[in-house]
Amino acid sequence: MPPSRPSSLASVTVPQGFFAAGGTCGIKESGKPDLALIAADRPCSAAALFTTNQFKGAPVLVGMRHLDNQGYGSAQAIVCNSGNANVATLAKGGEQHAVDMCKAAAELVGCDPHEVLPASTGVIGRPLPIEGVLDGIRGLKPALGRGEKHDTAAAQGIMTTDLVEKCTLQSFEIDGKPCHLGGVGKGSGMIAPSMATMLIFFTTDVAIEPSVLHEALRRANAESFNRISVDSDTSTSDTVYLLANGAAGNARIEQPDGPAFDRFVDALTAACRDLAGQVVVDGEGATRIFEVHVKGLPSIEEADRIGRAVTNSPLVKTAIHGCDPNWGRLVMAAGKAGVELDPSNFMVSIQGVTVFANGSPTVTEPRPLAGLAKKMRTDRVRITLDAHHGPAEAVWLGCDLSRQYIAINADYTT
Amino acid sequence: MPPSRPSSLASVTVPQGFFAAGGTCGIKESGKPDLALIAADRPCSAAALFTTNQFKGAPVLVGMRHLDNQGYGSAQAIVCNSGNANVATLAKGGEQHAVDMCKAAAELVGCDPHEVLPASTGVIGRPLPIEGVLDGIRGLKPALGRGEKHDTAAAQGIMTTDLVEKCTLQSFEIDGKPCHLGGVGKGSGMIAPSMATMLIFFTTDVAIEPSVLHEALRRANAESFNRISVDSDTSTSDTVYLLANGAAGNARIEQPDGPAFDRFVDALTAACRDLAGQVVVDGEGATRIFEVHVKGLPSIEEADRIGRAVTNSPLVKTAIHGCDPNWGRLVMAAGKAGVELDPSNFMVSIQGVTVFANGSPTVTEPRPLAGLAKKMRTDRVRITLDAHHGPAEAVWLGCDLSRQYIAINADYTT
Repeated sequence: MPPSRPSSLASVTVPQGFFAAGGTCGIKESGKPDLALIAADRPCSAAALFTTNQFKGAPVLVGMRHLDNQGYGSAQAIVCNSGNANVATLAKGGEQHAVDMCKAAAELVGCDPHEVLPASTGVIGRPLPIEGVLDGIRGLKPALGRGEKHDTAAAQGIMTTDLVEKCTLQSFEIDGKPCHLGGVGKGSGMIAPSMATMLIFFTTDVAIEPSVLHEALRRANAESFNRISVDSDTSTSDTVYLLANGAAGNARIEQPDGPAFDRFVDALTAACRDLAGQVVVDGEGATRIFEVHVKGLPSIEEADRIGRAVTNSPLVKTAIHGCDPNWGRLVMAAGKAGVELDPSNFMVSIQGVTVFANGSPTVTEPRPLAGLAKKMRTDRVRITLDAHHGPAEAVWLGCDLSRQYIAINADYTT
Repeated sequence: MPPSRPSSLASVTVPQGFFAAGGTCGIKESGKPDLALIAADRPCSAAALFTTNQFKGAPVLVGMRHLDNQGYGSAQAIVCNSGNANVATLAKGGEQHAVDMCKAAAELVGCDPHEVLPASTGVIGRPLPIEGVLDGIRGLKPALGRGEKHDTAAAQGIMTTDLVEKCTLQSFEIDGKPCHLGGVGKGSGMIAPSMATMLIFFTTDVAIEPSVLHEALRRANAESFNRISVDSDTSTSDTVYLLANGAAGNARIEQPDGPAFDRFVDALTAACRDLAGQVVVDGEGATRIFEVHVKGLPSIEEADRIGRAVTNSPLVKTAIHGCDPNWGRLVMAAGKAGVELDPSNFMVSIQGVTVFANGSPTVTEPRPLAGLAKKMRTDRVRITLDAHHGPAEAVWLGCDLSRQYIAINADYTT
């Protein structure tokens, strides 16, 4: 299952008042695009989520500062290079390079450098060839525009080892006003010697307070990017940026509740899930993805712990790869999650077929298991785990573990 | 690096007053040994550690009960079959089968069935062919004896996918009395469709209170089995049993402190580390193991969190497999452990060569990195991570992630 390109790449410039561009700045020896700029026609409400890794890339540190270290504030543009992550370049002025990128973008957009949010992804540990990057940014001026061509250029400018571009678009109404939410993203694991970060950039024309925007992003993230696993590792550069310019003209959303807020959270969650799925499908070496529907837990936290343990388990991931309806590994992975479970009341189904219930396997004959294995030879396997012990549920998404993952990540020679 | 057989298998019957036997009971179609019995000449102080998985095998539940659910008490024998784990057989009387195994062993040894600790390892979900197992246990009477031949038979009787037998022997003095501690073990991951549990059985002639024995085992375990990772998964049957019959004649150790206790903990820790290393070397598909020396943390808990994150990281494991001196992945894995770190004060060395310090890589030229990669082409790679932020340290042990692991765990057809 090689990931397929989205049928349309229309995304970040569909919301009114946003412009995008992609280009090259000489980082990638292949000459492929390695620069992207997304800009708004006015200062926007901005919200962000950053990696929880203790080792943060220089652009993450600068982006955090530009949002006053509270994850939300005001911004008018996002600038990003690919091919070099500007990570672990403390001694080489990495943070200054991120600041300089913001300055160059600000001059082009006509805003304050603090109103620009930076990102970088690619090889780590090498100093950014900053002069080329700054020239590249300055050269983007004539490329800035609206329409699918520009969205595509931005989506391509942030790719590293991704096999295809990733984008999403949601259209909805608030107060009878047509609203749009577009996003581009990249990420497929963490590749040697670079760290293939997950970067997600959203634009929307909804009018909304920065702090409320941040709360919406936090909620949508909890049900999407927080519930995917490619290899359980966490990049030093993971970043989600969201700009909202208010051009749709809805009554400004000022509280994290009410119908308008809920509508926006729904659209944002759908957009996040869409991109999260695209990231997993493009997971390193992935040949198949699997959904884990965890049900019947006392709390969402417990459902999430089980979902995380199951999607991260190497034994589950290899079983999915081998189309093995191995309920034993699913039960083992759920059981090690640190959540109290009653084995005699636990249910496991694979592709809709119950394989474990009431403490014992329900299918022990070879023939039906072979039939179920055949049903698993598909792009997307569905697993349900029901603890019958409460109302909470969570849906996690993972990808299989293949020889190709080993090949990508081990067969690198310095 | 295929694991090599220990030069001597003398182990569980070296302590005075212990006997061992191995045999067959018809579970393994190959006809290989699938039964083991270890017995003492008198009731022993007994201590145990069991899997923390919520789904526990029937023998684990029975073993816990026989030690009054407090992990220590009195016992005189250990009985174990391999080839069938007696897990998830709730509806099929799995617990009764484990009790019946204890009864058969008790008749043979001449003790109460509650004085027998059971274990099973192998395929899960299938009912134990209990009649054959009981006949097999009864037939072990003439096989029970002392000496390396009997130790070997016991070590072989508990193997599943292990490539070699695993055993350890420590000799030491307490109160001027010669003391011995022997152990056999098995485990190499968790294999489809079975769960290849870690089982460890120790015998010692030291005189010691059960509760103090348990405390010693807890301490030794924290610095050994708790610090290894083959694939981050946790079996439903993991068990460590330890019998102490007091035949050495030392003054009975009645408190968890003092020179005699410390001496015993040292010997037990050495034995646990020895077997833990053997388990990792025999890890599924392992071609190379790596030690992670975590230093300079405020607490042991924080050092352990980092050690666990690094040894479990698929990206670190594949880098070790590919002899890639990838400090970026080590830094990433340490950074995601949920421990506060100062990147500008963090140090990473591989095979004694410092590759990252003060927030930046120290080696960026291809030639020395290629030289370091060559140094990694060995059976055991040493990594040091120093946070320079406190006195606590921990040494973890992991194995690489190879195509063979995928082959073992994915290429199973129902």
